[in-house]
Amino acid sequence: MTRFALTLEFDGAPFFGLQRQSHGPSVQQAVEEAIHAFTGENVRLHSAGRTDSGVHALGMVSHVDVEKPFEAFRFGEAVNAHLRPHPIAVVHCEEKPEDWHARFSCIGRSYEYRIVNRRAPLTLDKGKAWLVTRPLDHEAMHEAAQHLVGRHDFTTFRSVHCQANDPVKTLDQLDVSREGEHVIVRAAARSFLHHQVRSMVGTLSLVGLGQWEPQQVRDVLQAKDRQQLGLNAPPDGLYFMRAIYP
Amino acid sequence: MTRFALTLEFDGAPFFGLQRQSHGPSVQQAVEEAIHAFTGENVRLHSAGRTDSGVHALGMVSHVDVEKPFEAFRFGEAVNAHLRPHPIAVVHCEEKPEDWHARFSCIGRSYEYRIVNRRAPLTLDKGKAWLVTRPLDHEAMHEAAQHLVGRHDFTTFRSVHCQANDPVKTLDQLDVSREGEHVIVRAAARSFLHHQVRSMVGTLSLVGLGQWEPQQVRDVLQAKDRQQLGLNAPPDGLYFMRAIYP
Repeated sequence: MTRFALTLEFDGAPFFGLQRQSHGPSVQQAVEEAIHAFTGENVRLHSAGRTDSGVHALGMVSHVDVEKPFEAFRFGEAVNAHLRPHPIAVVHCEEKPEDWHARFSCIGRSYEYRIVNRRAPLTLDKGKAWLVTRPLDHEAMHEAAQHLVGRHDFTTFRSVHCQANDPVKTLDQLDVSREGEHVIVRAAARSFLHHQVRSMVGTLSLVGLGQWEPQQVRDVLQAKDRQQLGLNAPPDGLYFMRAIYP
Repeated sequence: MTRFALTLEFDGAPFFGLQRQSHGPSVQQAVEEAIHAFTGENVRLHSAGRTDSGVHALGMVSHVDVEKPFEAFRFGEAVNAHLRPHPIAVVHCEEKPEDWHARFSCIGRSYEYRIVNRRAPLTLDKGKAWLVTRPLDHEAMHEAAQHLVGRHDFTTFRSVHCQANDPVKTLDQLDVSREGEHVIVRAAARSFLHHQVRSMVGTLSLVGLGQWEPQQVRDVLQAKDRQQLGLNAPPDGLYFMRAIYP
């Protein structure tokens, strides 16, 4: 048996998220079926993160165990060949020891959230960014974001469907910057709660629009009450960027 | 009558090019119909460039003449509202004098060609870049490109369907650079022949792959013979970036 770590890039638009779902196509199902097509094996894909419907990835890390012998590069190429026409690609493949686990060995995850801040509708970025048509003050957003950095109970910023035992997480980075009409939010932590990034971005956008004072973000964090969440940003703008291992 | 200059951004994938065609949808038809929908007027769109099927634009400049009075910002917003769900957007709209013409007043055009240079198939960039799976030497491509800069007879790099009277053009810039796995070609000139950018990029890619010496690009330019063209790059990677006016 060989354990292969796959770095995956995908367009989340056509999928009901990364994890296998009974009610629609998932990235997991597409990758497992691609591997079955050339190995005949029923593999199970384990991943560093569980992205939602419509969320994208540039560097998701997943693993599978395969009985038949393959060289890592050839295995990755074969998965890509059988993934067509799904918008999923293996951008890197390497062998890992049996005690290495894409999810449990992961000690850091990072996301990027892309907002296009302009009046005009999206064309080339449709489904790949969140369009906010009123001007965003990215500096106020960045200031507000710093209230969320650190170890906190993130109950306010957590989906009601979140399965984590503990709402306490340590957020290492939450930076907001502007590149022309793009406002980019970069988030890094050991792990995140379900909907945490989208909930934080949505709430920061209210600060950017001038509807909330930066300090209100601290107040709703301290309230530990999902009802006080400002807004959950849509999945279109969210990208899983990197998984970090020791 | 008011002349409005519209700066257009569009995803070229669903269109048979910018210009109106009898055999399929075009950007021109979509914009003209959007304007007709709220003015009742049969306007004609004139544009700085004539992009092919599948070619994109970030800053195409076009104009229309409208009888009913509109304020420029409101006019652009109305066009956008009626363009839905087409992936075309007016990113800027301004009033122009009657002797200003989007095509004939234009004194400079620039294009960008985006190549993704990696083994893995495209996912988020599908239809928006050219995938070249073998390694490209972008420095050799840039060196070869310099043979094309200047005033030349570009017959070799011109479509057989090109309608220009004169194959002599002055190419002001043709730069090749790499940003990670992206190889970007930037081209600027007063005007271009039909397929000129794609023909130049395709031929430069042969240099990048090591199949041609940089100097061969000069040789085929001097041959003034379309048969000697190396390769016409696909439309997916081509973007009309800017039109310049005095």
